[in-house]
This record gives sequence, structure tokens and C-alpha cells, in this order.
Amino acid sequence: MGTHGHVSLQELDRFSRSAFLAIGADKDTADAASRAMLHGTRFGVDSHGVRLLPHYIRALEGGRLNKCPEIRKVGGFGAVEVLDADNAQGALGAYRGMDRAIDLARQYGIGAVAIRNNSHFGPAGAYALAAAETGFIGLSFCNSDSFVRLHDGAMRFHGTNPISVAVPMGPENPWFLDMATSAIPYNRVQLYQSLGVQLPQAVASDSAGVDTTDPSAVDMLAPLGAEFGFKGAALAGVAEIFSAVLTGMRLSFDILPMGGPDFATPRALGAFVIAMNPDAFLDRASFDDGMRRYVEKLRTSPARENCRVMAPGDREWEVARQRQEQGVVLDPVTAEQFGALAARLQIPPVA
Amino acid sequence: MGTHGHVSLQELDRFSRSAFLAIGADKDTADAASRAMLHGTRFGVDSHGVRLLPHYIRALEGGRLNKCPEIRKVGGFGAVEVLDADNAQGALGAYRGMDRAIDLARQYGIGAVAIRNNSHFGPAGAYALAAAETGFIGLSFCNSDSFVRLHDGAMRFHGTNPISVAVPMGPENPWFLDMATSAIPYNRVQLYQSLGVQLPQAVASDSAGVDTTDPSAVDMLAPLGAEFGFKGAALAGVAEIFSAVLTGMRLSFDILPMGGPDFATPRALGAFVIAMNPDAFLDRASFDDGMRRYVEKLRTSPARENCRVMAPGDREWEVARQRQEQGVVLDPVTAEQFGALAARLQIPPVA
Repeated sequence: MGTHGHVSLQELDRFSRSAFLAIGADKDTADAASRAMLHGTRFGVDSHGVRLLPHYIRALEGGRLNKCPEIRKVGGFGAVEVLDADNAQGALGAYRGMDRAIDLARQYGIGAVAIRNNSHFGPAGAYALAAAETGFIGLSFCNSDSFVRLHDGAMRFHGTNPISVAVPMGPENPWFLDMATSAIPYNRVQLYQSLGVQLPQAVASDSAGVDTTDPSAVDMLAPLGAEFGFKGAALAGVAEIFSAVLTGMRLSFDILPMGGPDFATPRALGAFVIAMNPDAFLDRASFDDGMRRYVEKLRTSPARENCRVMAPGDREWEVARQRQEQGVVLDPVTAEQFGALAARLQIPPVA
Repeated sequence: MGTHGHVSLQELDRFSRSAFLAIGADKDTADAASRAMLHGTRFGVDSHGVRLLPHYIRALEGGRLNKCPEIRKVGGFGAVEVLDADNAQGALGAYRGMDRAIDLARQYGIGAVAIRNNSHFGPAGAYALAAAETGFIGLSFCNSDSFVRLHDGAMRFHGTNPISVAVPMGPENPWFLDMATSAIPYNRVQLYQSLGVQLPQAVASDSAGVDTTDPSAVDMLAPLGAEFGFKGAALAGVAEIFSAVLTGMRLSFDILPMGGPDFATPRALGAFVIAMNPDAFLDRASFDDGMRRYVEKLRTSPARENCRVMAPGDREWEVARQRQEQGVVLDPVTAEQFGALAARLQIPPVA
């Protein structure tokens, strides 16, 4: 461990891979799961960062996830493929899906891949960004276990159902959006609860669906948009339809809880990715110029007092640069779990 | 005109087509523009309904729009096509684009079409729904002249940049979402101003970007999401990138004002549509079953007190049923303009 308890991203990646290999997961699983978690940790999305490692280890050991999956094509034609992920750790299925979508987009200008029998894929942005870093526009969608009410609804219906879109920007870092379709992330509720701070209006509800600003009374999240929450709920529906209906996998309210207690039964999650090839639409120089002009104009546009205007991804790229230089401090629970994991699996602890 | 000043949708369609043909627009223009406006009027989106007819007539007569455009393929490969709409009335370019996207999706499972040199296309939902009514999933995107600030921004940057997604539901009416990426439509601001009602928090701003609840102080709209308005702004960015950057057309802040005074210069708008073929992903019966189960569960899920949970499109289909039966009452300005148009073009007035 570095100064002041900082751990480098490289060291976290090393530890994560070692842990997967130590329990007998194959190299592809170790690579993909570690890469996706490091995406989360690198960009400051700690809820989908390395803190998930003990969870994935447990799911692999319990049999919910397949340590050595055989991912194969089971359907599709033309620019569409359907993959069966064979209950792989979710990042492996999603990266594999995006790889195929990129190949299809290379050939057909656009490609869509539906992934069956996948599992929790972590940060949706990881897969969209993988496309953008290859020069393609990437989109990724996933549903998840119910935690968000419908507009005017009073039950947990959709998951936080993320949507991610990433767009290449020539030699610059890609533009990228990775959003939950809920008004706020549940992390925010937990944070405000521990700080004793009231929530904003209309972002979370009690068990009757009534909005509450008291973090301890929260039973479900509200969809994005407050009074216009039908928009957020409908966007969650897009993720649900693409990820669950088009794959024939489970709807949010049918998904077994991520947190168990059952860690033996596969959760039958779907995921959905699209890649688009800018070269199919216009010459690359014009595309790059267009993106550059758009984003420059955005970044230099007038801001509200004491504010700064940023493009989607700008904040995340700043965090990534900082964390690449300084490393991160693990939260106490994760640090302790990593210690126990190192001891049990007889791998070198994070240093 | 029927009882109590009601006009049937059929009569409005007849009048609209007559007006276009009377000024020398071709049949395709008359058909497409009328169909799109009737979509707006039928579903209760009156801002994009027949009230736009005098505007389009003026733009066609002024030369901004081409009365007899030759829409042609100018690029693309595989499942992607680029169309040049030759400054057609925008609905014509968009319907033609979606027709091509559907053909591509029939062959390749998915198809994307970028439309260049298009113009104001009215209700985004018209084109997504056209796909769904043919059994395909449809997506449509467009940017428009700047009227919405960025998150933390203090200038009109994006347009209300709509996103629409429609999904077929077997024999039932399609699921469909047609949303502006602004927090509210500008219509709402105008309505509240005329009613003397305060706006909700965080939906519109004055010229410094400061939120205001006073409708008369509104200079720009806020992006969807309030405190989390970076999500709405990023979704507007997706529409902007697809519709303007991928087409090489004008970014929102470069678009000439829709309202003139220049009605002679084409506005160089882009539009973007995608169609997906459910049959490429799974068998149609399973897809239809999945959609039916999802939407039934949604509609019958517990509601907040005195509320009703609806699927995207449910409200619009109800309005459509009612308006199909009863017709609509034209607002006074539109009624007067229609009268003047009938007299000038020597066509039978709406009756």
C-alpha cells in the first residue's frame, strides 16, 4: 500500500485477477471482470468498482456464475447476433457482446448484440467506452432487480436500468454518458443517511410510493424527471425491453436478488449492446471535426454563476487522471474483505 | 364544422393535403406533412399538430422548403444509409428515412438512416410509431434550434432535442415514448403564463441561467433531471450527435430560427432513425408474450394514492381514441389562419 493508504489501480487490477484465477475462474473471466471493475474504480463509480470483487468471487464459488463459460452465438442474422453467455460473469458476456457488435459495425455500419444468460455486468459505461476507444459509437443497456417505482407507481418495478452511450473524439478522450434511469443512485441515499442530510425533493419514496426527503424512510427510488418522471420511467422501459424482452431473459421484478441468499442459481439476466461505425455515415475527418466543434463550444459556453459547464465524461476523465496518478483509498469494509480474501486464497494482499 | 365547433381528424387531413397541393407541393410532401401533423393532433401533441400547417405553407412558398424534392441515397453501406432529403418538408425526409431503415432491418436485423438537408420534422414519435406499426422497433432523434441550457449552463445551447422509441405489441397499440430532453415543453411555460400559475422548481431559467418559477421571466428551459440535469443534457447530446454530427448538418446553436424572418434559406437540419427487427433476436411469439407480460404487469402494478400507472403511450392512445370519435376544436389563431388560407388558396374551408 502506498503513502496514506493509497493503492494504485495497477495493484488493484493485479489483486483482482489473482483472486479470480485462484478460485479456478478462467483467464477471460479474470480479465473481463477486473477490467470492468477497474473502469468503475478508475472513473469514480465506486459502487461498480473493485468493492464488487468479493461479491463476484462468492457468486462464482456458489455456482451462480460459471467459472469457465463457453459463450456462443445462438441466433441473429445480418447485423444482429444473439449470444448465450453460459452464465458468465456479466462483464465477460458484455465485453464479448460489444466485441461482436464492433465487428458487425465494421462490416455493416451498425451492429446489435443481445446477450442471454448473462449476469450483473457492473458499469454500463465500460462497454460503451470499449467501443468508443476502438473508434465506434457504443451503446449499452441493462435491467436489474427492481428498486425504482414507476411514475405514479407505488412498488419497486424497474431496476436502476442504466443506459450508456460513448462517442469517439479522434485523439481525445471519448464523450461518454453512463446514467441510471432513476432520479438518483441508491448510493446517494446511503451517503445522505450516514451524513444526516435530507434528500432533494422527489427523488425517493417510502413503501407507499410517497416522496420522502428522509433517507431512512426510503423504500424505493423515483424515476428520473420528478413531475416528468414518466420520461425516466420510459427510459428505464427502453433498457428493460432491449435487455430483457429482446433477449427473452428476466424482467426486473422476476430477477433473483443480487445479494442472495441464493448464490447457486443463475439469475438469467440479459444485456444489450449496439455499435455504430461513423465511417458508414460520413468521412472520419468530418465526423471528428463535428465532435470537436460541438464539445469545444459546449465546454466554453457561458456558465451559471460559480458553475462550470462540462461535457458528458469530463468529470469522469478528471477523476481517472487523478486516480491513475494517486491511486485510491479503499473503503474500510472492502479493505477488510480484500485482506480476508488474500489470506483464504493464499494470494499476495494489496500493497 | 361539427357540433360545438369540433372538426374531424379526417377533415383536417383533407384540408391539409388540399393546401399543400394548392401551392404546388407534390403529393409525397402533402401526404407526409399531413400524416405527421395529424399524428400530433391525434395524440394530443397540439404543438406539433395541424397548427403547423400555415408555417409549412409559408416555408414552402418562401423557398426554405422544396415543393418537389428528389430524395436520394448519398452514402452508407451494409445496414446504414445516408439520405439527402433535398430540403424536403421534414416529415417527408423522416418517413422516407424510416421506410429505408425498416427495409434494412428486414434484411440485416437492424438498420440506421442518417438524413441530410432535412427540415423541421414535427413529432419525433410519428416516425418511431411508423416502424412499430409495421412490426419493428423504431427510434428517432432530431436536434432543433437552441432553447435549452446545459446543466450549469447559462445560454440556450441544445434544442428541445426529442428522442422517440416505439415498440410493437402484437395486435395491441404499440408502446411508445416521445420525449423532449428538456425538463418541460415550452408550451407549458406559455400555458402557465396565460393562467398566471407559477412553474415547478428547476424547469426553466432566466437569461443568466438562474432558475425561475415565474413564466414571464423564462429565457431558456432547463434540461431534464433538475439537480441531475446532466442526464437530460447528455440525452440532448445523444440526439445532437446522431442528428447533426453523424449527418454533417447544423448543430442546434447554428440553426436559423424556425420562425424566420428568413423563409427562403434552407435550414440544413439533420435527422436520424433506427429500426430493429424483433425477429432477428427471438421468435415473434416470445417477443409478443414478453411485451404483453411486461406491460400488463406495469399497468396493474400498485399506484400512488389517487394515481394511475400507465405505460408510455397509454395516455396518447386514449386521447387518440377520443379525438377520432369527437374530433378536435381548433385554437382561435389556427382557425383564423385556416380560414385565410382557404380563401387565398381557393380550397374548401374546414367544415
